[in-house]
Amino acid sequence: MKEIKTYLDANKQRFLDELLEILRIPSVSADPKYAGDVRRMAEATAQHLKAVGADNVEVCNTAGHPIVYGEKMVNPKAPTVLVYGHYDVQPADPLNLWDSPPFEPVVKKTKHHPDGAIFARGSCDDKGQFFMHVKAFEMMLNTKNLPCNVKFMIEGEEEVGSKNLEKFCRDNKKKLACDVVLISDTSIIDNKTPSITVGLRGLCYMEVEVTGPNKDLHSGVYGGAVANPINVLCQMIASLHDAKRHITVKGFYDDVQKVSGKERKAMNAAPYDEKQYMKDLGVNDLMGEKGYTTVERTGIRPTLDVNGIWGGYIGEGAKTVLPSKAYAKISMRLVPDQDPKKIEKLFQKHFEGLAPKSVKVKVTAHHGGYPVVVPTNSVEYKASEKAMEQAFGKKPLPQR
Amino acid sequence: MKEIKTYLDANKQRFLDELLEILRIPSVSADPKYAGDVRRMAEATAQHLKAVGADNVEVCNTAGHPIVYGEKMVNPKAPTVLVYGHYDVQPADPLNLWDSPPFEPVVKKTKHHPDGAIFARGSCDDKGQFFMHVKAFEMMLNTKNLPCNVKFMIEGEEEVGSKNLEKFCRDNKKKLACDVVLISDTSIIDNKTPSITVGLRGLCYMEVEVTGPNKDLHSGVYGGAVANPINVLCQMIASLHDAKRHITVKGFYDDVQKVSGKERKAMNAAPYDEKQYMKDLGVNDLMGEKGYTTVERTGIRPTLDVNGIWGGYIGEGAKTVLPSKAYAKISMRLVPDQDPKKIEKLFQKHFEGLAPKSVKVKVTAHHGGYPVVVPTNSVEYKASEKAMEQAFGKKPLPQR
Repeated sequence: MKEIKTYLDANKQRFLDELLEILRIPSVSADPKYAGDVRRMAEATAQHLKAVGADNVEVCNTAGHPIVYGEKMVNPKAPTVLVYGHYDVQPADPLNLWDSPPFEPVVKKTKHHPDGAIFARGSCDDKGQFFMHVKAFEMMLNTKNLPCNVKFMIEGEEEVGSKNLEKFCRDNKKKLACDVVLISDTSIIDNKTPSITVGLRGLCYMEVEVTGPNKDLHSGVYGGAVANPINVLCQMIASLHDAKRHITVKGFYDDVQKVSGKERKAMNAAPYDEKQYMKDLGVNDLMGEKGYTTVERTGIRPTLDVNGIWGGYIGEGAKTVLPSKAYAKISMRLVPDQDPKKIEKLFQKHFEGLAPKSVKVKVTAHHGGYPVVVPTNSVEYKASEKAMEQAFGKKPLPQR
Repeated sequence: MKEIKTYLDANKQRFLDELLEILRIPSVSADPKYAGDVRRMAEATAQHLKAVGADNVEVCNTAGHPIVYGEKMVNPKAPTVLVYGHYDVQPADPLNLWDSPPFEPVVKKTKHHPDGAIFARGSCDDKGQFFMHVKAFEMMLNTKNLPCNVKFMIEGEEEVGSKNLEKFCRDNKKKLACDVVLISDTSIIDNKTPSITVGLRGLCYMEVEVTGPNKDLHSGVYGGAVANPINVLCQMIASLHDAKRHITVKGFYDDVQKVSGKERKAMNAAPYDEKQYMKDLGVNDLMGEKGYTTVERTGIRPTLDVNGIWGGYIGEGAKTVLPSKAYAKISMRLVPDQDPKKIEKLFQKHFEGLAPKSVKVKVTAHHGGYPVVVPTNSVEYKASEKAMEQAFGKKPLPQR
């Protein structure tokens, strides 16, 4: 440990300067006008991997933004850890809400960050995190403390749905083969309460279109006689939850894994201040599935949210239109062992079945994602737990 | 009658040419860039009134578009008829749906118009109608057949809510004093079934805003624990009708006039082909208040329609946002003796009462309008009925 501490003390400022340097690159994956910067960021990432001693470093082209790969195979018999991260960032707008320019990082102390923190787009999503692993790797190599093989896969499309990652993984199975994947693209409960994210909910994202009459009508002439697709859509959406806030889609809960009382108890032991949570969100009450706590509702229970709705006249003032169409984007968060493809079909069938004869309904699917939970009794989890306990002075909580 | 027929035959082509001329003026009241054309149309209207023999013709300025006034007082003891009309028109877009330019009128025969009709923006709303009255006035004056006093009030803001008309009427009570108001800004059942519109539903137009959390949230992190304002708004809207499609706003029906069985029977005697009605609208079923026919639902019953709804992400693809706010425009059609101001208050109270503690609700009112029904046993109605019976060969039906 001593040599690690010595190495850190000697290099901390350089680590910080290097991180600030890559935070200056506006690698916004969603906006084509930053495509050159995204490429520049991929090259910079590759340079860093090379500089710290990774082998076979590549900037791998895809149909979209490139994926950076690098590795260090110290012993074919040792386990292999693949570090996943992403070097792209979310768009920085609305710009007027930034106190300093998003791509000009500043280090400052605030009420929430008494020890100081870096303020920049990407500092904690996900440049800060993957760079931490790169520097840990550097240190372990240089102090001869690296006990396992390491592979890096740092992609550039996380913020736009990782459209080309799946194909890349399928095409490079052998290269990416590993025993454990380490992802640091999540959060910690707080600095006094270390935690390890062991589960993420999956997703099934649908779009629905309800068509009433074949053209927009005047609500004075037709109102009351012809089904209004907005009113109908609202009724259909309202019926997707029952009074206990259970989701009514037939078969929706069939594959949901039951979580043991012990695990639920452990989850609820994590520090959580409901008053502060509500205060931060500016709400007077929370709302969710009966019989579950907030931590359980957002961790181990599936949900259904309308992410967008639109139809009719939405400009200034009043227009007495009885519109032809109404639309909504509806997504479901899934938990093990729900299958997004199966849920997609169940939703489609259920939603179409809700429609009265007076309207037509079209249901289409956007992307989905599988839920995941990793076991906390594996050697790898125990190793992470031990490492964090050493650093924080207390055992981290598993979080999902 | 003979001299009328002679006059009509001699002047029909000139009447048509004059009408086509004013249809060429793009008097779009909603769009400021047509303000000069709206003014030009007001001047042209005044010119026509003068030319046909009206006295005291004025283009009266208002805070918005001008109102044209003219009169002929033949006998202070005779009854006075005030003819109301509007010379402004709706915007012509979407332009690509027009077969010929909206302000270049053409006369042509179609399947629905075997005798030919004028196609132009405003030809039947409302330039054609008010000009018909101007020409009837001309003919009656020239053939010495005018038995009553006539006043014209032709405004230029009907299509934008007649914002300045009420003040004008209040400020000019004496000038506008009359025994009956004749409005031809409505439709006829069909050319084989003459009808007179004797009632119009009123309006109460509201806008609602539902606020959940104080900022947009990620549905993966917060979904299931925090009230989603779109889901909540949908539930609130869905609850505004019961299973019989009655409106649930407390006190909503308190002042609704009961319509006699006799009057309902008369209404339902009007020709109405439900299959054709559905075919024209492209729907497989109609939807409305239990216990009433379509004619009754759109004539004598109040209704509630969502005219617009919006919230969250409404662009292409998927965004897993749990939005802070959701909005809707909700209007109610009113019947005698419902008071829009009273309904406004009832709606506001009821809607606020629907909100769960987890959201905040703001309800604001747009413009409203009073419902109206005129008696069909008055001398004036009987005179109109008689005139139409002479022209069409059958008695017109009262319609509302």
